[in-house]
Amino acid sequence: MAPKTVFITGANRGIGLGIVRELLKNSEIEHLIAGARDIEKARELQSISQSDSRLHLISIDVSNDESLENSVKEIDSIVGENGLNLLINNAGMIEVYKTMDTPNRFAVLNCIDVNAVSSLLLSQHFLPLLRKAASHVEGDEFSVKRAAIVNIGSDCSSQTLNVTGFCNETLLAYKMSKVATLSFARSLVADFKILNIPILVTTIHPGWVLTDMGGPNAEITIEESASKIVNSLSLLNSSHNGGLFDRQLTPLPF
Amino acid sequence: MAPKTVFITGANRGIGLGIVRELLKNSEIEHLIAGARDIEKARELQSISQSDSRLHLISIDVSNDESLENSVKEIDSIVGENGLNLLINNAGMIEVYKTMDTPNRFAVLNCIDVNAVSSLLLSQHFLPLLRKAASHVEGDEFSVKRAAIVNIGSDCSSQTLNVTGFCNETLLAYKMSKVATLSFARSLVADFKILNIPILVTTIHPGWVLTDMGGPNAEITIEESASKIVNSLSLLNSSHNGGLFDRQLTPLPF
Repeated sequence: MAPKTVFITGANRGIGLGIVRELLKNSEIEHLIAGARDIEKARELQSISQSDSRLHLISIDVSNDESLENSVKEIDSIVGENGLNLLINNAGMIEVYKTMDTPNRFAVLNCIDVNAVSSLLLSQHFLPLLRKAASHVEGDEFSVKRAAIVNIGSDCSSQTLNVTGFCNETLLAYKMSKVATLSFARSLVADFKILNIPILVTTIHPGWVLTDMGGPNAEITIEESASKIVNSLSLLNSSHNGGLFDRQLTPLPF
Repeated sequence: MAPKTVFITGANRGIGLGIVRELLKNSEIEHLIAGARDIEKARELQSISQSDSRLHLISIDVSNDESLENSVKEIDSIVGENGLNLLINNAGMIEVYKTMDTPNRFAVLNCIDVNAVSSLLLSQHFLPLLRKAASHVEGDEFSVKRAAIVNIGSDCSSQTLNVTGFCNETLLAYKMSKVATLSFARSLVADFKILNIPILVTTIHPGWVLTDMGGPNAEITIEESASKIVNSLSLLNSSHNGGLFDRQLTPLPF
């Protein structure tokens, strides 16, 4: 149940890079496009791509509309008639913002723009390529082999969980961005249902991972998180549409 | 259990105006400040204020930081040593935005800015006046009589409900803004708990109301919604902190 073609953003480090490594272990994947803001500086991706011709590197700034449009053209030329089976919205940022901080509209809006609105826009821009991939499969199947959008979420995506644990008092803006991301995912699912578009959309929380973003106190390694996420991708079906799950597909509360 | 001083935004029409009318029926309220973008054009508020000196009118554009700062100064001079007991974040906008529309970053961000980020910033700017009001009461009381922030939410504030009914396929951006508003409310509650700040924060869904925003197919009148909301305000206590409720304080799912 592997997708032939995958595009992942924010792939130069952390969970994104971990997912790239795991996906490349699957020989069914024909083209894996890894996006990063400055791909020239993504040394590990550059190194992997030299030994694996299935890995394609593109520069993309998800907060820049022209960059999004260019990425569609580049990826269209790579995936061709197959279209894009799987878009993984992984690029994101942490914004430290507390209730008692000086009010800062730009900081809050920018975090929401990068994490939520950019993922929405990328999903919209890639709909034609996702629909092309979906058209090659008959019937009601929802899977990453057919066509899917997977947002890398957080326990901060959950209103129930986002006032506990890692989602503590420094992440007010980040939490707004992550619940907004889950919201648009659910809207896509609702709209696709009305329009009979068989693209699966779901949100996966990778756990608290030892990355630059997660910090040194995190609980699991990148490898552990990424291997579980990639295994879970292969298991996704219509029951996961619009939901929020941990890396092993255990449902998390909204 | 009435607040002595109240500030409500978006008060020139619809639910905001309805809440103003209902609040003025309560003689315990000493100062009600009604904000609108262009207060000179708010004829009904102008008319009411001529016969009720407790009603104060101010111009405020919630998406403009300077306007927020000015509103704090104006309201400080009205409420004086009492401080502000109750801030009602009611101003908001509808944005029609569908999955299949041309991607439009500004439209989505602007809706989130006006509905969610502006309410957050207003809440932050008014913290000193709310804390002043809270300081006049001893103990653990959480109430609108002491100090409270009430966000006028929506069933679109609920991830569970926001793919059904009125929250249909045209409201993708609005839903993002409304879940983000609930998110910051929960963050404020979590942060206030750590900081021992006795300000109640909650979110109330007014129902689908016959307003310009709700449209002609809505289910209830402004009067019915506003009277229920104002009655519910007087019942708010610590059990409502961080939650999402309908106008009669029935809990809604996240």
